[in-house]
Amino acid sequence: MREAYHEQLDRFAEILGDMTADVAKAMEKSTAALLNVDLGLAEQVIDEDAKIDDARAAAEEQAFALLALQAPVATDLRVVVAAIHAAEDLERMGDLALHVAKATRRRHPNGVLPDQVREDFAQMGRVAVELAKKAELVIRNRDVALAQQLEQDDDEMDALHKHLFSVLMDKDWPHGVAPAVDITLLGRFYERFADHAVALARRVVFIATGKMPGRED
Amino acid sequence: MREAYHEQLDRFAEILGDMTADVAKAMEKSTAALLNVDLGLAEQVIDEDAKIDDARAAAEEQAFALLALQAPVATDLRVVVAAIHAAEDLERMGDLALHVAKATRRRHPNGVLPDQVREDFAQMGRVAVELAKKAELVIRNRDVALAQQLEQDDDEMDALHKHLFSVLMDKDWPHGVAPAVDITLLGRFYERFADHAVALARRVVFIATGKMPGRED
Repeated sequence: MREAYHEQLDRFAEILGDMTADVAKAMEKSTAALLNVDLGLAEQVIDEDAKIDDARAAAEEQAFALLALQAPVATDLRVVVAAIHAAEDLERMGDLALHVAKATRRRHPNGVLPDQVREDFAQMGRVAVELAKKAELVIRNRDVALAQQLEQDDDEMDALHKHLFSVLMDKDWPHGVAPAVDITLLGRFYERFADHAVALARRVVFIATGKMPGRED
Repeated sequence: MREAYHEQLDRFAEILGDMTADVAKAMEKSTAALLNVDLGLAEQVIDEDAKIDDARAAAEEQAFALLALQAPVATDLRVVVAAIHAAEDLERMGDLALHVAKATRRRHPNGVLPDQVREDFAQMGRVAVELAKKAELVIRNRDVALAQQLEQDDDEMDALHKHLFSVLMDKDWPHGVAPAVDITLLGRFYERFADHAVALARRVVFIATGKMPGRED
């Protein structure tokens, strides 16, 4: 039984690792679509979101199978529930990449971003994708040390997000309200994506060690 | 065993029902604080959020106890996992009420809302609280018919949210970018609160009937 349990747990890590690679790719593409006003790429992200939703359903099925067949208790049980939450974080990260892609589609053929904030979003996109790629390694290798790094990357995202607001709120902002509304929401999507990546890494630390790092907020 | 299982399931509904009442109250207070520029009330919501987080932890403990002691399978197992997700929705609803309260605190002694959107937020607050109160009844009475109503209330929220954007995007918006940024985020918080209330009601329908209504998104 312990053998089968660990096999199933490995299968879990594989599904979650693949999902994480997919949401990293989705955010990479949506950011490129946003920066380059690329409708085709945005539509690709929109089409591919269903795959992430399906993977989440598969992860939850895997959890059900594990709970029903192995009836784990104590820490093992907590590990499975943590994995269910991790799949939910990943689906949400996919949704946030989707929202970015939809903003690009909504304004096309116009771009969403004035030049003044283009670099901010290039950076937020880079940090978001980096966070997801590290989270993938954390999952695949149960790399607890790497999980710590994600907290620092998230601080970088928070700083970028704060800077973005200072640009918008500056009295010399020349682009008016409509682009500011779009940019406010986009900034929020990147920040939430990063939050979920950190939550995800924390859950993996828990799955690997049985201990939850810090408070989860 | 079936007896104990149903007792534990009832205890679950009680915890989730109490949490739902708490998030409804939190959103009612944050909206009043926002409309009346009431710092004391905003701080009350901020202080009380920890109670909602604790209740979520208690709900998850209850789920662990049920899984570990009863080892439910098939539909019973899905019911417990649905309840774990429901508690997560509720914690998030509490966070969103908290974000509204924090916006009030951040701008105090100034108000966040220009008069022009005051009525929009009064309405969004009313719909949000109504949704949470109905969700509470859905949970306490396993009222599947009432759960359908929440979908319509959510349409009302979406319409209010859309209207809010049209006010902000209007070329005659006289308040500039900074209030528009605050209002954009606040609008998003109310909309997400409503989304989670609907997801919550759907999960309860599943808990009561074993069938998930519609697609979840």
